[in-house]
Amino acid sequence: MKHVYTGKTKDVYELEDGNYLLKFKDDVTGENGVFDPGANTVGLTMEGAGQAGLRLTKYFFEILKEKGIPTHYIDANVEEATMTVQPATVFGKGLEVICRYRAVGSFLRRYGMYAEEGQPLDAFVEVTLKDDERQDPPISEDALDMLGILSHDEYKELKDITQQIAATVKEELAKKEIDLYDIKFEFGRAKDGQVILIDEISGGNMRAYKQGEYIEPLKLEKLMMEK
Amino acid sequence: MKHVYTGKTKDVYELEDGNYLLKFKDDVTGENGVFDPGANTVGLTMEGAGQAGLRLTKYFFEILKEKGIPTHYIDANVEEATMTVQPATVFGKGLEVICRYRAVGSFLRRYGMYAEEGQPLDAFVEVTLKDDERQDPPISEDALDMLGILSHDEYKELKDITQQIAATVKEELAKKEIDLYDIKFEFGRAKDGQVILIDEISGGNMRAYKQGEYIEPLKLEKLMMEK
Repeated sequence: MKHVYTGKTKDVYELEDGNYLLKFKDDVTGENGVFDPGANTVGLTMEGAGQAGLRLTKYFFEILKEKGIPTHYIDANVEEATMTVQPATVFGKGLEVICRYRAVGSFLRRYGMYAEEGQPLDAFVEVTLKDDERQDPPISEDALDMLGILSHDEYKELKDITQQIAATVKEELAKKEIDLYDIKFEFGRAKDGQVILIDEISGGNMRAYKQGEYIEPLKLEKLMMEK
Repeated sequence: MKHVYTGKTKDVYELEDGNYLLKFKDDVTGENGVFDPGANTVGLTMEGAGQAGLRLTKYFFEILKEKGIPTHYIDANVEEATMTVQPATVFGKGLEVICRYRAVGSFLRRYGMYAEEGQPLDAFVEVTLKDDERQDPPISEDALDMLGILSHDEYKELKDITQQIAATVKEELAKKEIDLYDIKFEFGRAKDGQVILIDEISGGNMRAYKQGEYIEPLKLEKLMMEK
């Protein structure tokens, strides 16, 4: 297999059959030694973080598979912290798709004139560009279409499956009495043009609260994987 | 008549018949003594700025009236720098609606990864919240609807008349060989619920270029009003 990409938290290898192998690293994003899933820099290394992220990712991707929601997932080996996925191309130079159930974070920073902290939001979907230099700006359906990043039809598909996936995660968390406030995903186009979920679904992708208290990504992974 | 509001560049009076009188002031927005139509602070006073802005506003609003595009305009007295308008309520706490023909300004600051400076854009419409504290954040159709600011139907109406008005201004400027790069509007709901153009259309609302050179608002008003 051929090493093709070194990411902040994953390395990517191309397999001989045309699929890809993602190697989850113990590096987590953050600043000044503090774990922050929203940060654009690698902040620190936490032993077992790669395996923990993969364990939760595997758990969710297998539920999505059962539900027939399209993802890039093929299989995973938690011991080796690797996941095999089908190839997909990202939209433009990469998008983040956020689904919100509560007004927190950047939503509140932008729309605080109209929303109160923690106010329920009805599975609100928004898209931001992955662009560190420009602080991941939000972008509208019209702009995505005009700039050739995503067609109107693809946007509808993206929004629809984002809400389906977020609802699935929310439901799973609720079984442990954990509230999902928001979650971010990445999508790509599969070989056949279908919009599929890529990357991972781990603690670092979401804000989760239990009895009003924020749950750190690694703690969330532990709580979710407990029998 | 009763003084009801003091704005950055206009004072507002309520008339006895229920309509309103806008008094255009010579104060213009800017920073450090430099005229900047996009600024949120009053930077300086320029003699004749109020009349010049009103003259161009009158010119455009009367063309829109002929075309049957709904605005708050009733009539204007350039000598006294006053405009009579019908009442309207703004959406939420006020929106700015921008129509873009070229990639410049905040569009380029946000989407510079996908657009080159000055690249043509196809009458692209975007909405921002009037919120000085949060730097007038952009907002999507879905968020406007969810936050109760504008329904999906109103958004469609708003977008449609924005493009009609921008096209009218663009056409008028083109007669003087001036290129419209972008223009911002404000809208409100009339008593009957109709979406109507409010505020003004003057040099301060738009970026205009002649032979690749930016034209200052007061110069634009002069060029447009020349026979």
